[in-house]
Amino acid sequence: MKQAASEGTPSSISELNRSRIINFLFRNGISSRAQIAKATGLTAAAITKITARLIDFGVISETGDLEGAMNRRSIGLQFNDSRYEVIAVKFARSLVQIGIFELSGRCIKIHDFPPVNNEDVIDTVSQIKQYIKSTIAHNPAIVAVGMAVPGPYLSDEGRIISVTSMQMWKEVNFKNEFTQAFAVPTFIEHDAQSGALAQSLFGAQTDGNSLAYYLIGEGVGVGVIDNGNLVSGSRGVATEIGHLSIDINGRPCECGNVGCLERYCSTGAVKELLQEPSNRGILEDVNDLLPREACNRLFKESYAGNAEAQRIVREIARYIAYGCINIIYGYNPSQIIIGDILSEAGDTMLDEVRRIVAERVLPDLMESTTITLSDLPTDATLTGAAAVAASQFLRNPSRFVAGMDTPKR
Amino acid sequence: MKQAASEGTPSSISELNRSRIINFLFRNGISSRAQIAKATGLTAAAITKITARLIDFGVISETGDLEGAMNRRSIGLQFNDSRYEVIAVKFARSLVQIGIFELSGRCIKIHDFPPVNNEDVIDTVSQIKQYIKSTIAHNPAIVAVGMAVPGPYLSDEGRIISVTSMQMWKEVNFKNEFTQAFAVPTFIEHDAQSGALAQSLFGAQTDGNSLAYYLIGEGVGVGVIDNGNLVSGSRGVATEIGHLSIDINGRPCECGNVGCLERYCSTGAVKELLQEPSNRGILEDVNDLLPREACNRLFKESYAGNAEAQRIVREIARYIAYGCINIIYGYNPSQIIIGDILSEAGDTMLDEVRRIVAERVLPDLMESTTITLSDLPTDATLTGAAAVAASQFLRNPSRFVAGMDTPKR
Repeated sequence: MKQAASEGTPSSISELNRSRIINFLFRNGISSRAQIAKATGLTAAAITKITARLIDFGVISETGDLEGAMNRRSIGLQFNDSRYEVIAVKFARSLVQIGIFELSGRCIKIHDFPPVNNEDVIDTVSQIKQYIKSTIAHNPAIVAVGMAVPGPYLSDEGRIISVTSMQMWKEVNFKNEFTQAFAVPTFIEHDAQSGALAQSLFGAQTDGNSLAYYLIGEGVGVGVIDNGNLVSGSRGVATEIGHLSIDINGRPCECGNVGCLERYCSTGAVKELLQEPSNRGILEDVNDLLPREACNRLFKESYAGNAEAQRIVREIARYIAYGCINIIYGYNPSQIIIGDILSEAGDTMLDEVRRIVAERVLPDLMESTTITLSDLPTDATLTGAAAVAASQFLRNPSRFVAGMDTPKR
Repeated sequence: MKQAASEGTPSSISELNRSRIINFLFRNGISSRAQIAKATGLTAAAITKITARLIDFGVISETGDLEGAMNRRSIGLQFNDSRYEVIAVKFARSLVQIGIFELSGRCIKIHDFPPVNNEDVIDTVSQIKQYIKSTIAHNPAIVAVGMAVPGPYLSDEGRIISVTSMQMWKEVNFKNEFTQAFAVPTFIEHDAQSGALAQSLFGAQTDGNSLAYYLIGEGVGVGVIDNGNLVSGSRGVATEIGHLSIDINGRPCECGNVGCLERYCSTGAVKELLQEPSNRGILEDVNDLLPREACNRLFKESYAGNAEAQRIVREIARYIAYGCINIIYGYNPSQIIIGDILSEAGDTMLDEVRRIVAERVLPDLMESTTITLSDLPTDATLTGAAAVAASQFLRNPSRFVAGMDTPKR
């Protein structure tokens, strides 16, 4: 919204106002024109004019009467967000998932691709293209494609510059491969930043103004919304908290730095920890497991009351907490929402994280920062890919509704 | 524009357009109406109307003819930024400075207060008030007061929550003390964030869109401008990089955390380093010096070619570099500008910082991030306090020019 405002040519001002009305209805549900006027500061005349056009194009519609102040009745308006659908693609090293979502965030369908090895990457890219093309051809409700990719991702060039343990993804230029490939526009974002957008748009407990989505899975990253804006950096590589060093004398990382957080609490780090001689009793077949599987099994043991498994979960939680402290001093969000594979460690992890953060962060800041687990019904990165597309619709609706930006005669 | 006026809140859209024109002139110097139209996307008619009003109120004025494209001549417009002055106040633990600046960033006068001890804080606050009141009373050009305070500073409440080595400042509520105290509005910002604003508004080598001002003095912090916005956090405490831990097993900090960057490269840390037995030969009277003085003397020795002094400078530079790496992965700015006391270590420090960053950061990111020393003519935090006030004028000019926001009949 802010960004749009600074552009403000007359035609974009009407687009800006349209975006503000749709955003308000998206966030607040059925509302009267008077409620919209109060919240946006637009005049009644302007709202009548803009909503008439949005109704003509089917973007919003009138519902029955609403009970208003002093028993006055007024007509409700709703955004038809289930009328528009987006394709969401999650790239996560060996895992590629495609989902179909309504613009409301509701997931309609998920398709898992077979696990990807380094040598399958190029093939997988063309299979993804085929799948998306055929989906769009059969489903006219689809208005955009959103993609979430692991970082560090250079959004200007369209490529990932380092993927621990899966280097072939570096060879793919996502921008060149995908942005012009389909009949609808495609948008690509870093996975943790996508997750932050998902929390902001679809999360239950946020006003979308200040939050950090802390992704802890095969990689570690954070997406930050500060004062309503995604913190992105000059090339899209900001908030790469997995490569902030927590120990200048620590473990070397493939990125060239040492002591990167990702070396201590990603799924790979958990597997390494379980492989240490003193921990070998917990999962005897750990060597045969994928890092993701090792985590799932560990958490299952922890839930079942295995004290040794719980000890490991708390040890990992300590590192997760160090990341939280960096997020608090680095970005001062009002909420930290932990998601992805490690969030499945549940309360044993979360309680320990909160305890360590409380020990090390100034009380004023601790009290004004909530730390919770993601409660999105679907994986936050896949939902994030949908949010990447949905946020573009909310910012610039005319781009997705044919004919709406042509002035009415 | 008619359309715009009927759709948006008229007063805020005209103010927004006014702000855009003044900002353009502020950043680009004397320009023609056609140049403004091209850059802002406003119509010629709108620009004629808005600039006429700004000329009426003396905010901008016409200059002689400009040489235009194809030898067509056009009238130049300039922002009269030397007509407006601001008072800038820098709070830096023992040091309080007040400056008078033109809105252009030119410093007219600096007044140093006597060094402040913990027990003088309350007295100092009332002396500052007296000084500002009297300055405003004698100088009608002053339109605002800007203040820069050490962090972590809760901007919503108006107080500092921790000041290593100078706890009494925590007792001052800056917001209550100052924002209503004067005949002109007062604005308060965290010191490193103020410095970032100064670089963005008054620095020679930036477009003001993406930069980090890395303050290394009595405290350590960073101010970040991302996509034109200051990263501030929900309570103003973002970008407190001095309290990001670089060593989870490191030195304890007064804030409650361990291994905080501030414990390794602030003036106090430099003094401690010089006090270590193996380094005692470099400054024999180090125990008698204030941390700031110890740094100045060390840097003088280093410039004079003292190899031991240079070794210490490079040791400190190593920690400064770790901070740079965190800034790059944390915020991905296109420029890092190092300022305050430690920047006086000069090229011996800067070369080592660049060397270590290049070793540890991915080449793609290293190549697109410049690291330089601040080249502002006056101290960046004092200039920053001026920038805090100036940025408010640029954003909302009518607030500072009596009568300008009243519609013309």
